[in-house]
This record gives sequence, structure tokens and C-alpha cells, in this order.
Amino acid sequence: MKKITHFFLISLLFLLVISCAENSAKSAENNDLPPENPKIGLAIHGGAGTIKRENMTPEREKAYREKLQESLEAGYAVLEKGGSSTDAVIAAVKVMEDSPFFNAGHGAVFTNEGKNELDAAIMEGASKNAGAVASITNVKNPITLAHAVMNNSPHVFMVGGGAEKFAMEQNLEIVDPAYFRDEQRYEQLLKIIDTEKQQLDHSSQLELELQDPYFKDRKFGTVGAVAVDMEGNVAAATSTGGMTNKRYGRVGDVPIIGAGTYADNATCAVSATGHGEYFIRTVVGHEIAAQMKYLDKSLKDAADDVVMKQLVEIEGEGGIIAIDKYGNIAMPFNSEGMYRGYMYEKGKGKTFIYKDEDEKL
Amino acid sequence: MKKITHFFLISLLFLLVISCAENSAKSAENNDLPPENPKIGLAIHGGAGTIKRENMTPEREKAYREKLQESLEAGYAVLEKGGSSTDAVIAAVKVMEDSPFFNAGHGAVFTNEGKNELDAAIMEGASKNAGAVASITNVKNPITLAHAVMNNSPHVFMVGGGAEKFAMEQNLEIVDPAYFRDEQRYEQLLKIIDTEKQQLDHSSQLELELQDPYFKDRKFGTVGAVAVDMEGNVAAATSTGGMTNKRYGRVGDVPIIGAGTYADNATCAVSATGHGEYFIRTVVGHEIAAQMKYLDKSLKDAADDVVMKQLVEIEGEGGIIAIDKYGNIAMPFNSEGMYRGYMYEKGKGKTFIYKDEDEKL
Repeated sequence: MKKITHFFLISLLFLLVISCAENSAKSAENNDLPPENPKIGLAIHGGAGTIKRENMTPEREKAYREKLQESLEAGYAVLEKGGSSTDAVIAAVKVMEDSPFFNAGHGAVFTNEGKNELDAAIMEGASKNAGAVASITNVKNPITLAHAVMNNSPHVFMVGGGAEKFAMEQNLEIVDPAYFRDEQRYEQLLKIIDTEKQQLDHSSQLELELQDPYFKDRKFGTVGAVAVDMEGNVAAATSTGGMTNKRYGRVGDVPIIGAGTYADNATCAVSATGHGEYFIRTVVGHEIAAQMKYLDKSLKDAADDVVMKQLVEIEGEGGIIAIDKYGNIAMPFNSEGMYRGYMYEKGKGKTFIYKDEDEKL
Repeated sequence: MKKITHFFLISLLFLLVISCAENSAKSAENNDLPPENPKIGLAIHGGAGTIKRENMTPEREKAYREKLQESLEAGYAVLEKGGSSTDAVIAAVKVMEDSPFFNAGHGAVFTNEGKNELDAAIMEGASKNAGAVASITNVKNPITLAHAVMNNSPHVFMVGGGAEKFAMEQNLEIVDPAYFRDEQRYEQLLKIIDTEKQQLDHSSQLELELQDPYFKDRKFGTVGAVAVDMEGNVAAATSTGGMTNKRYGRVGDVPIIGAGTYADNATCAVSATGHGEYFIRTVVGHEIAAQMKYLDKSLKDAADDVVMKQLVEIEGEGGIIAIDKYGNIAMPFNSEGMYRGYMYEKGKGKTFIYKDEDEKL
């Protein structure tokens, strides 16, 4: 009898110890992306939305993939030379800001008043320093202004004309607001305003979207990058033109530190893209970090819980890219597609657009 | 020998089980504030800073306590009638916005350009809906604008002129920007600008603060309220005039959902006051909620960790008020003082200013 009790107790102890160990070990086996011991790594996104194969032309797809590749290479070049993850995410984001393909910088969507109002943010995981700007109309690369706010001001967040005055004092490149204007996007705005004027019902809204397959993905488009450098420091950067036809100085999740942009070496760096209001309320970036820190979840498990469960429950469409200091990358999205890519080795950047693409190395 | 092993194993098992139980149980005994099974509860703050007894006159102290009491009673009156925690926190905050004593609404501090730019936010814990505004110059009660953004727009965050346009469409009370102006505060701004012009060193800055003991507490002043109603729903509201002499459209933590304002029935409602930049980077409100949710901490333990440890480590001065659905209230601050108070029963509101006051019922 004693022997049985003894055996029972030993078994129970064993089970308890095993269960403890399982809980505290990082489940690294869940991450398929990084090669063994990657030194540096970078991931980018160019917005999430209803991006479907049937609405793409081969030419358009090729152009997007080439621009994503260019962004990856710009960021990677910084990391490769021993540069910081901060400089790498800025370099990657600038390429997408300068391209009319993405809803950020040149090519940003229009507000209801026909203006382009840009938001951007950056955060670095070592110091947890951050910089963010909103409602910018004349700074060529809003991400460089967010960077200047982080490094050269005592503030974290600046908006509107005040932020633009700071940009001028910082000698950042100022452009005529018309620089951001893209004719295709302007027509898209006019279409939407026209639709609203006609007080169309929901089914007709859908028709409009079918006519213009880029309606939805542009509506919430954003660009972003996350990286880990040779020092093991992570950083995140995000930039956006906001929502097409937005009113009332609306600001989304991008410049909200903790929501659209977040970084902490202890957990991860996150850049989000999607329906910003839901991302703000879910505090997306910090929620992923908190699950890693306090539940000992892997980056992938935490990111999946937030994007594929929490956001789905409240119909918060979009996705995120994230990286941890070990180079693990997660890129979950609950929309039809997300322009995205990552790079661990020179010349080996991988880009993706649709849901069904194999993301493994 | 077998007996010893047996005993050892049983002891080990016992210890493991005890340690597990300790980790998962809510340490409710840490909360001294609520009476047993409170139906409703409300807490408020009127800003944190270097508020010392020796700098106060009895008249001034009495006036502050009376205004805090008035705010508590306004919020409590809503809860008592079965009103929502959302309406209660708005009522409490409006009293402080309307008073020149606090850095919010009438009596807000001045920007470097001699303007008053106001920020506010509200969030409710049942729906996790939220509304926030920044850089408002002509809406009498910014908290009512944040409320309108939450209820009557598809957006969460609006800034500047766009938000003011929305306020007019919502028929909110619009005032001349001069309404917010308080002569004492204006002189305070002139003093600071003068000091900066003279390029004074650190010790002279200190002298200035000694001359004007309200320098620091006004610099980061904020008002806020958190409440739980008869339905067990929590809500948080915060309103501020920002930092004295702030530049470049600086926005602090108040309108950042997750930082200065946050609410979730599953955890707590939080309203913060302090050096906003540090509060943003720490994602203060959501960090407290995450520790409760994922570490099973009590409200008090989570709030203490964030305010008395995390913020102290990065010299982020200030405090928070928070409430959970059980009516537990926490009001930690790491500054010299914080205008604050709470109320569980009619006519029994309690107000506090200094660090050494006994907060128990």
C-alpha cells in the first residue's frame, strides 16, 4: 500500500514539475520563420485589406512585390552594417512612404475635405523611447518627424501645425501638400463622397467596392516595419495617410503608442495595420507584449490571440507584424490579404500578398 | 529511509500546491478601501505634483477640498439614481473642468504661444468603447466632446479644428477661447518663458519653483474620475490643459487610450495624472489591467507596481486612480501630493491632498 502511495506521489510531483516547466518555457517550436540563431531580422507591411488574386493584374502584383523587396533591402542594408533597428525601420518605411502604392506619405488617401493628413510613430525597445505625430500635411517623410520628436524633444506626441513647426526647426524636408496627392486616390474619394450623397444602402456600398477593389484595403492602409539589430535591440515604425474620407481630424491607431506601434526588448516590437478604432480599444501592441511577458507566450501565440481572436470577436479587421529579440517574426492578419515581407539574409527577402502563401523560409 | 522520502515528497507537494494557490487567488485582503459589498463607488483626482502642506494656506486647502467634495457628490448623485458609471464620471469631471483650481477646462495652463489647448478622453468597461480629443480650444467641457466622439461617431480619436467642427455639429457648448484663461496661470507662463529666455541653470529653476509652489503641480495637472455603477460596469474619464509652456502641439497621455485613460469590466477603470510622456511609454492604464488579468494581481498590487515601481524607475512623476467592478479603489502616486477623493455612501465623500493622510474609510 505504501509503495502505491509512494509511486502515486512521485507521479504527481513529476506531473506538477512538467506542467510548471511547460508554462514557463518559451514555446519556440511554434515559430517557423527564423533560421537558427539569426543575427538580424526585419519584417514589413504595406497595409491589410480585401486584397484578392482575382482583383490583381500580374503587372500590379509584380510592382507591389518589387517595392516591398526594395523596402526590405533598404532596412536590411542598415542592419547588415551594424546599424540600429531604429535606423533600419525608418529606412524601410521611407521607401513605402515615397511610393504611391501605399497609404502613407506620397499616395496617402484623402480626408473628407480633400486633404492628406498623415500620422506616424516610432518606438525603440531598448530605452522604450517613442515619438509620434498626427495630422501632418507638409512633411515629406512623417516617420522622420516621429523620429525627431523621439530624439530631439522632451515630448512623445505632437499634432498638427505645432508638429509641422517643429519639423521646420529640425530642418526636415518640407513639401507642398500637393506632393502627397495621387490622382487615382482623389477619384476614389470623389466616388465615395458621391456614394454618401446619394444615401446609398448597404448593398450598393458593396457594389461600389466591387467596382473599386482597392476601396477597402486603401481605406485602412498603413505601412510599417519591425526589426532586431546585432545588439539584440528591437524597434517598430508605422506611417499612414489614415482613412479615405475621414472627417473631423480623425486619428487612428498608428501614432497611439501601445496600440499601432509598440516596442520593448523584453517582449517584442509591433507595427499594426487595420481598422484603427478597434486597434486602439484593444491596445493591440501592448496587449501582445503583455501576453508574452505575463503568460510566457511565444510571439506567435500572443500575436495570434490578439489578431485572430480578440480583434475578430469585435470585427476589427487588419493585421500586425512583430519581431522579438531572438528574431522570431509573426505576421498574422484576419483580412483577405496583407502586403508583407521579411528578410534574415542578404538577397533573400521574401514578400507575400495573399492569405494562402507559404511564409516559411 | 522510505518514511523520510515519503515525508519529504508530501511536504514538497504541499508547498507546490500552496504556492499555486497563492498565485491564483486574488489578494483581496490588500484592499482597505471598500466597505463590504459596495453597490456603487467613485474616485476622483485633481492632479498630482509637489503639493506640500507648508505651501498651502488653510483657505486654499479648504477651497480645494470643497471643490473635490462637490465633484464627488455630482458623480455619486448619478450612480445613486441608478445612472451609468459613464454619466457619473462625466458629471464628476465637469465640476473640475468648470473650476479654475484645476488644470482642465476653465483654468487650463497656457501653451508657449499663450493659448489653452485641451485634451480629454472617456472609456467604458462594458463595451470597451472609447472617445478621445486633443488640442481643443473652444469647447467648454472637453469631456462632453470625448463622450460625443464615443457615442455619435465611428471614430475614437479626433484632434484640433476637425474635432471642434464635430463639437459644433453635436450642439455642444462652444465658448470664446478666452473663457479658459486664468490670470494667475497666465502670469505663471510669463514667468517660465522669462526664465527660459534668461537661460537660467538648474538651481535657478528650482528657485523659481520655490517662488511659485504651484509651478510643478500645475505643469502636469489633470482631472479625472473612475466609477462602478449598480450594473457593475466601470468607466474612466480624464481631462487636462496639458503642460504649462508646452510647444509644438504636444499631446500627453490623457487622450491616449491605454495610457492615461482605460476601462475594462474584466479588470478595472484607470485615470492617470502626471508627466504624460512617461505614462504613454509605460502604457499605464493597460499595464495595470494586464497585470490584473494575466498575473491575477489585485487592483492595488497592480497599480502599486506600475506607479510606485515602473514609473519611479524611469522618474515618471504622478499618480493614478482606479476602480474595479467590486468597488475596490486604488489611488497610488509617487509625487508629493495628489488631489483625490472617493465616495461609497451618500454624504460620506472623503478627500485627500497630501501623502501622509489616512485614506481608510
